Amino acid sequence: MSRQSSKEDINLVIVGSIGIDTIETPAEKKEEILGGSVSYACAAASFYTGVGMVGIVGDDFPEAYTELYENFGIDLAGLQKVPGKTFRWSGVYEENMNNRNTLSTDLNVFESFNPEIPEAYRDASYLLLGNITPELQLNVLSQMNNLKFVVADTMDLWINIAKDALLDVVSKVDMLTLNDSEARLLTGEHYLGKCAEAILEMGPRCVVIKKGEHGAMLVSADGIFLVPAFPVKAVVDPTGAGDSFAGGFMGYIAEKDSVEENIVREALLNGSVVASMGVEDFSLDNLARLDRGAIDARLQEFIKMTQI
Amino acid sequence: MSRQSSKEDINLVIVGSIGIDTIETPAEKKEEILGGSVSYACAAASFYTGVGMVGIVGDDFPEAYTELYENFGIDLAGLQKVPGKTFRWSGVYEENMNNRNTLSTDLNVFESFNPEIPEAYRDASYLLLGNITPELQLNVLSQMNNLKFVVADTMDLWINIAKDALLDVVSKVDMLTLNDSEARLLTGEHYLGKCAEAILEMGPRCVVIKKGEHGAMLVSADGIFLVPAFPVKAVVDPTGAGDSFAGGFMGYIAEKDSVEENIVREALLNGSVVASMGVEDFSLDNLARLDRGAIDARLQEFIKMTQI
Repeated sequence: MSRQSSKEDINLVIVGSIGIDTIETPAEKKEEILGGSVSYACAAASFYTGVGMVGIVGDDFPEAYTELYENFGIDLAGLQKVPGKTFRWSGVYEENMNNRNTLSTDLNVFESFNPEIPEAYRDASYLLLGNITPELQLNVLSQMNNLKFVVADTMDLWINIAKDALLDVVSKVDMLTLNDSEARLLTGEHYLGKCAEAILEMGPRCVVIKKGEHGAMLVSADGIFLVPAFPVKAVVDPTGAGDSFAGGFMGYIAEKDSVEENIVREALLNGSVVASMGVEDFSLDNLARLDRGAIDARLQEFIKMTQI
Repeated sequence: MSRQSSKEDINLVIVGSIGIDTIETPAEKKEEILGGSVSYACAAASFYTGVGMVGIVGDDFPEAYTELYENFGIDLAGLQKVPGKTFRWSGVYEENMNNRNTLSTDLNVFESFNPEIPEAYRDASYLLLGNITPELQLNVLSQMNNLKFVVADTMDLWINIAKDALLDVVSKVDMLTLNDSEARLLTGEHYLGKCAEAILEMGPRCVVIKKGEHGAMLVSADGIFLVPAFPVKAVVDPTGAGDSFAGGFMGYIAEKDSVEENIVREALLNGSVVASMGVEDFSLDNLARLDRGAIDARLQEFIKMTQI
């Protein structure tokens, strides 16, 4: 195992949601499985660096899931456990495995989440603001002392109901990640190049537009970098792919302790690879089976598939 | 101008349809413009190599369009001009510029097309069977003496109404190109990796699955090569993009006179680049403004966008 786990070594902090999901795909239905943006992102990042999780669960949160986090080597000093029920989400994927419909969302303890960053995390250089309300992202950001590079992920919901707060987040981070339809929604532009230009004008020095099974696009003053998606043999459960992508990306950046253009590009390849492995089973099940060697092997395969 | 034009030098033969198109996009409507698979493919290939066109037009075919072909340096010994009207097609693009609806198709002289390969073309090493009926593709293939590499392009129509003949074509060529939905239709598989495997079992040594604005995927025994699409600022008219892609691809292969894996990969990048320039105006209008230098400049830009 190459996962990092010493508490002295928290170089990357990730905040986001923790959910217990019920997911139905055309092939299978899974009930009460571990999900949430911070679960996927921390698991993905754990292959690269010491990572501290900031999140909230209820007192019904299964001990097995806490152990799973620990097995990934995730530091849990920022994980709050409070009376009440853990956030629940359920959804159904359509036949193509891209479109999904939410059946229910119960915020439960998440509704009163007031993230408190542990002292040991406050000097970390790298912060990933996983997909949660922009207000909570701002709250976390304000508690960090010594950041070198901050990435915020977001989703259509916040563009629709909390755009001002989201724009505040965007203006304060180094990079925004969002998917193609969200980039169009946020900017009113259609072509992704134009979406990216409009987002850079909002403040961040780079933006990653995620295109799901079609890869991702990084845009900064240094230019554009296009990364296709690794062609998986079959997608079992795409939930959390964007979060694993962001986690793998930030894990690699934190490991290299650099945001040079070439490192950022390599980080994008790593994020794609980890995400492609995450969707090959439900929840964190496949990621839990992997080690860094397996990720590096697929990374080499991916590089052969994309480089002339 | 770096276009080739001497008749002695026909190393690549391309057969396909020639149409006069009426095209409506959300922004504009253009009537009676030059189109057809062989027009786009030959124009794209002309930047790289001497190319001979095999096609048919009616006696109403505007002299200006013949001159346009000549300005590209396309050899027209294989262009038949017969009494009657040229093939007509009209279609409307939806707001997203991806989906289109055909309004009318009048085959006219194309219905009686019996391609006859000029003597001077029969020893060419490279053949692109552009998108026409599989029967015509087989007819052309049978007239060539000395082929090194044959690519066939196809479309959903032939999968639906002429599958047996198409499978015969596929079994006899080195490479098949088709788009993602067509690959799924032809194979009954969903994941493109599995589609590609199924197509390779039909006979060709490689397959290119085109994904439009999401790029393309080459699969052969040598592995997979993924190429994103060049991020154009705006698509004016996507008609013929797949044909320009195939033409640029084969033009580059013919120029290098090699089908080594690295050349095939570079050819894919060239095809993507030429296609991306073709969609920036209607018909052949943008391609007609370009020279090889402009294509090479975008190619270098594209390489910077895709290579770490």
